[in-house]
Amino acid sequence: MTSWRPEWMLVDGAFRKGYALDADAEGRIAYVGPESGSAVEDVRRLPGNAMLPGLVDVHSHSFQRALRGKAESRYRSGPNFWSWRDTMYRCALALTPEEIYDVARMAFLEMALAGITTAGEFHYLHRTQQGKRYEAPNLLAEQVIRAAQSVGIRIVLLNCAYARAGFQLPPDPGQVRFLNPDPEEFIVNSDALRKKITTMSTASFGLAPHSLRAVPREYLVQVADWSRAAALPLHMHVSEQPAEVAACRAEYGCTPFELLDGLGILHENFTAIHAIHLQPGEIERMGRAAVTVGACPTTERNLGDGILPADQLLASGVSIALGTDSHSQTDGFENARELETNLRLSKLERAVLDGCHDQPMSALLLDCATRSGAHSLHVEAGALEAGKFADFLTIDLQDAAIAGAQPEDLLNAIVLGASPRAIADVVVHGEPVVTARRHARAPEIIEAFSRVQHRLSASL
Amino acid sequence: MTSWRPEWMLVDGAFRKGYALDADAEGRIAYVGPESGSAVEDVRRLPGNAMLPGLVDVHSHSFQRALRGKAESRYRSGPNFWSWRDTMYRCALALTPEEIYDVARMAFLEMALAGITTAGEFHYLHRTQQGKRYEAPNLLAEQVIRAAQSVGIRIVLLNCAYARAGFQLPPDPGQVRFLNPDPEEFIVNSDALRKKITTMSTASFGLAPHSLRAVPREYLVQVADWSRAAALPLHMHVSEQPAEVAACRAEYGCTPFELLDGLGILHENFTAIHAIHLQPGEIERMGRAAVTVGACPTTERNLGDGILPADQLLASGVSIALGTDSHSQTDGFENARELETNLRLSKLERAVLDGCHDQPMSALLLDCATRSGAHSLHVEAGALEAGKFADFLTIDLQDAAIAGAQPEDLLNAIVLGASPRAIADVVVHGEPVVTARRHARAPEIIEAFSRVQHRLSASL
Repeated sequence: MTSWRPEWMLVDGAFRKGYALDADAEGRIAYVGPESGSAVEDVRRLPGNAMLPGLVDVHSHSFQRALRGKAESRYRSGPNFWSWRDTMYRCALALTPEEIYDVARMAFLEMALAGITTAGEFHYLHRTQQGKRYEAPNLLAEQVIRAAQSVGIRIVLLNCAYARAGFQLPPDPGQVRFLNPDPEEFIVNSDALRKKITTMSTASFGLAPHSLRAVPREYLVQVADWSRAAALPLHMHVSEQPAEVAACRAEYGCTPFELLDGLGILHENFTAIHAIHLQPGEIERMGRAAVTVGACPTTERNLGDGILPADQLLASGVSIALGTDSHSQTDGFENARELETNLRLSKLERAVLDGCHDQPMSALLLDCATRSGAHSLHVEAGALEAGKFADFLTIDLQDAAIAGAQPEDLLNAIVLGASPRAIADVVVHGEPVVTARRHARAPEIIEAFSRVQHRLSASL
Repeated sequence: MTSWRPEWMLVDGAFRKGYALDADAEGRIAYVGPESGSAVEDVRRLPGNAMLPGLVDVHSHSFQRALRGKAESRYRSGPNFWSWRDTMYRCALALTPEEIYDVARMAFLEMALAGITTAGEFHYLHRTQQGKRYEAPNLLAEQVIRAAQSVGIRIVLLNCAYARAGFQLPPDPGQVRFLNPDPEEFIVNSDALRKKITTMSTASFGLAPHSLRAVPREYLVQVADWSRAAALPLHMHVSEQPAEVAACRAEYGCTPFELLDGLGILHENFTAIHAIHLQPGEIERMGRAAVTVGACPTTERNLGDGILPADQLLASGVSIALGTDSHSQTDGFENARELETNLRLSKLERAVLDGCHDQPMSALLLDCATRSGAHSLHVEAGALEAGKFADFLTIDLQDAAIAGAQPEDLLNAIVLGASPRAIADVVVHGEPVVTARRHARAPEIIEAFSRVQHRLSASL
C-alpha cells in the first residue's frame, strides 16, 4: 500500500489540506480522508501539488496522431470535414502494424503528459493495407492495447463495426482497412478480443458501431443487442456533420436519434460521439434515455464540425463526457473549457453552464472530463473515492497559469487557465506513469514516432 | 556579440538548418544566415530547439491577472461582459501601487514563459484608490514598466485617456482610478512619461484613448492629433460589444468606424482593439486606411464578446495583431489559432484563412502574433532579420505536442497544437529571460503575487 499526500486534494468538490489517498496492491483506492485516518507506512508526499482525479478521454483515434499538422492546407486537404477525411484515409492506409503501435504510443504518451489516465480508443483499423484479413483478426487492436500498456495508461478498446461507405454509395477504397461487412464475424472476433482483454488489469472492452452511415440498421441492432446482453459500453458517431443528418433522413425518413430511439438503442450505456447537429425533439429523447454525449471540442473546432448545445443537453439530463478524437491538439483542460467558451462565443454571454446540475461551472466541466467519462466507458475511475481505481493527476501549484490561486478559485484557474505544463505527476492503477513532468519511456517513444513521421512525409 | 545556433531557425517562412543569429551589444540582430557567415566567437548552441521570433502581445491589462478564476460565477459576477466589468472594477479599486507591481510581474512572467517578448500594456490605472491624483502623476504606469523590466520583457506603455462613464451617463464610482477628464493635463502627463521612457532600452510609449464611450469626440481628436504629430502608436477599444455600437449611433448617429474615419483617425498607426461587431461598410473603411485590429481571442471567448470576422478583415487589407487582454488564459499559440478555429466553428469549414495574403495559414497566424504586433506597437521586432531587436523564443522539438513533426509540418504543429510547455528559451534584447523553461525570478514573483491573491480573496 502507498499513501499519497498532496498539499491539496479535490474531494467532494473542494480542495482539502492534510488529506491522504491510500492505494492498494490491486491498483484501487483503499482510503481517502484526513491523513490521521491512514495507517499506511509507505508515504509519498507531494508538497506544492494539488491532486485531482485523472482525466478520462472517451474518444481517441490514436493513429490520427500521425496526421497532426499534415491536413491543414485548403489546397491539399480541402475546405471541409469530408475533404479532410480523404487525407485521414491516406494516413490510415499508409501505416504498417508496427507503425500503428508507434503512433499509438505517441498519442498515449502525450495524453498521459496531459493528465489523461484512461483512453477510450474507438478502434476501426482491422485489415491489411490491401484490405485483407490478418491471420490474427484482432492484430491491430492488440497493437493499440500494447501501446497503452507500454505507456502505462488505462485503455478501453471500443471495437468498431464498419460495413459500408454509406446508403446507396459505392465502396470507398480509402475504407478497406475498416471493413467488417459480416456482423456474425465481427461479433465472433470481438468476443475473442473481449475475452483476451478480460485478463488484463488496465484494459477493458466496448463496442462501437461506427455510424448510421457505415452500419446498416440490422447490423446495428445485432451489435446493440449483444452490447446490452453483455452490459458493454456502446459508442457511436452521431450527427457530427449536417450531411449525416440528411443521409439518415434520406435512408430512414427520420432523424438519427429518432431512429436510435425507435431501435431501443438509447439507454444509459450508450454514448453518442459529437451529437452536434440536433433537430427539434432529439435532445428530449436523449435526455429521457439518459445517454452520454462524447464531446470532442478541440477536434470539432479543427474539423469545422460546429458548436455542441451543451447547455440544452445538460438541462435535459444528458451527461457530457470528453474526448480528444483526432489528436489535433491534446489538452484535457482546453477540451473541457471549450464546452463553455464556445457557448459564450455563440450566445454572447458568460458562465453559461454555471449552476447546471447545481454545480459551479468548473466543477461541472471537470466532472465531464472525469466522472462522466468513467460512466461512459464503464471504468471504475473518475473520482478520488475509495473503491475506485487509483488513477489521478497532480497539478504543480507553482505553474505560472495557476500560481497564487486561492483554494476557492483554484479549480476555476485550472479548468479555465491551465495547460499541460501544469501537470506534474500522473498515476494509473496506483503506478506512477509521469513523475515531475517526465515519462521514463518518452525518448524511445518519440524516436520511434519520428521515424514514422519521416517515412510518412513522403507518402501523405 | 553572441551567436545563437538552434537546430532549426524560421527564416523567410521556412525552417532552416545550420543557421546562426548573431546579437550585438545593443540588443539587435547583427546577422541571420548560414553559420559559415558568422564570425562571432561566443557561440550558444541550442540543439533540439527551433527558433522563432518572439511573440508580440499588443493588448495587455496586466492588473487583470489578479482576476483569473475570480469572475466565473454567473451568480457572483453575472451573465455577461458588463457584469464581469463590475468585478473587474472592484479588482482595480482594491490594488495598492505595490500590488499593481506584484500583479504585473506575475502577468509578465507568465507571458515570458509563453514566448511573449513584447507586451503592449493598455494602461488605465492612474489615480489613487480614492480617485485622487498621485503626487507623481505617472506613478502607476511606472510601476508597470518597472515590473516588465524586472521580468525582462519589452513593454510598450499605451497610456490611456478616460474621461467619462459614457454618453449621458452619470459618473461610475468603479472608474475613479481611470479618470483623466482634462485632455491638456493628460497630454502633459503623458509627454513627461514619454520622455522618461525614451531613455529606456526595452520600453517605448504609445497612446490609448480608451473607447468612444469613455472619451468624447473633441478629446479624442486632441489625442489623435498629438499621436500623429509625434508618430506614436494609437490604440483604442472599438466595437467589443454590440451595446458600444448602439451607444455610438445614439451619440453620433453613425457607426464607430464611420465616426473614426470622418475624424481622420483611421490610418496605419491606428490599432482597433477587438473590432468584432462590425456593420456594413466598416470593414472597407478599415481596409482602405490599412489599420490594424488587435484581436484577443482567448479573452474574447472568456468575456462572451463574439467571433472576429478575421477572413473578411484580412481580405480587405486590415492587419490583425494579437493580445492576451484580461489574462484569463496566457497562451500565445492558442490565441493565434483561435482566429482560425473560431471561423471553422461558425462557418463549418476548414483552413478558412489558408492562402490569405498568399500565406499558408500557420505562417499567417504566426505573422499576426509577431510581425503585425510589432507594426502595431512601432517596435522593431517580430521577425528574425538583421537590424531588428534580438527578441526570440525557442521550441523544444522533443515536446510531446510537436515531437516527430517534419520541417514542412512543424509550423502547423506548433501553431495548431503546441502549448506553453513547448517554449524552452526566451531572449529579449539579446538577453536570456527564460532558459530551459525556467525564469530565475519566478519563485519571488510567485510568492509576492500569492500574497496579493490571499489578501484579495477577502475583498473581491
